[in-house]
Amino acid sequence: MIRRIDHIAIVVEDIEEALAFWQESLGLEVSHVEEVPDQESIVAFLPAGESEIELVEPTTGTSGVARYLAKRGPGMHHLCLEVEAIEPVLARLKDRGVRLINEEPIIGTGGKKIAFIHPKSAFGVLVELYELTPEEPQRRLEAMRRLRRRLAINSQAAREGIFTFLRTLRSRTSRRVG
Amino acid sequence: MIRRIDHIAIVVEDIEEALAFWQESLGLEVSHVEEVPDQESIVAFLPAGESEIELVEPTTGTSGVARYLAKRGPGMHHLCLEVEAIEPVLARLKDRGVRLINEEPIIGTGGKKIAFIHPKSAFGVLVELYELTPEEPQRRLEAMRRLRRRLAINSQAAREGIFTFLRTLRSRTSRRVG
Repeated sequence: MIRRIDHIAIVVEDIEEALAFWQESLGLEVSHVEEVPDQESIVAFLPAGESEIELVEPTTGTSGVARYLAKRGPGMHHLCLEVEAIEPVLARLKDRGVRLINEEPIIGTGGKKIAFIHPKSAFGVLVELYELTPEEPQRRLEAMRRLRRRLAINSQAAREGIFTFLRTLRSRTSRRVG
Repeated sequence: MIRRIDHIAIVVEDIEEALAFWQESLGLEVSHVEEVPDQESIVAFLPAGESEIELVEPTTGTSGVARYLAKRGPGMHHLCLEVEAIEPVLARLKDRGVRLINEEPIIGTGGKKIAFIHPKSAFGVLVELYELTPEEPQRRLEAMRRLRRRLAINSQAAREGIFTFLRTLRSRTSRRVG
């Protein structure tokens, strides 16, 4: 049922500061940066093998991630697993009495289906399940190409470009946390 | 420098109980279970794509993981990244002022090299770096085969077998936590 770890989400106060570690020190590259209005956050993805590190910066003080950050400080927030088909997995989990945050999948960008399992039922881990749609890889590839064209990744200008882009996203959001 | 996510370590009170979720409900399989005396814990690995979920159960109340569990409850403990060559990565991190728990790699089972980065320098995440030795994949495959021979994975007997094996490991350890 489980194909792979899709991503590990890490909540941070400030993506720019965090990239100094994940990008500059560890050498991972940013594949794309976007604002996720539903989750009141800006996210940056850094591929590592077949998975990604997702840095999440809250843009308000009221979202789940903002409250998590205020309570526990920065750190790993959730683990996302790609499943072949999400509905049968959710049905099986419900049958077994596993507490779900989303009993039905939420439809995200590009038609992808996601659902969260409550950490109470997953021994302290917030688990996201994710079913890739046929369009998603193409959509991601195009987003990556657009970002690369815009930033010409791997140069100083590129890093500056990511930061400028981050600041643009932030200036669009209602207010900054902290 | 970074090849892939090797594993996500999750601290739990009781591996048997946690397997009811990770194995029975989510359908991941246990590839191997072992006692790690250095870390005062028993661990179970569940492959997910090219990565693994590592469940860690402390066997004493004094280790780092036991204290983490007592303070923060069960949940994600560290993120392990496989690097091509660990020494140059550590040198680069030191040059950049990143705080390391291990300035030199620790040599683990089968000659593998590991080192931890302090969460203060990794924005709240305990990051383990891991350099695979040429022997490690063979060693892991053999460990998996031994476990499979012993347990004939995927049957009720197998699950019972894992639990029996876990109990054997526990009975060897000095004392149980909690």
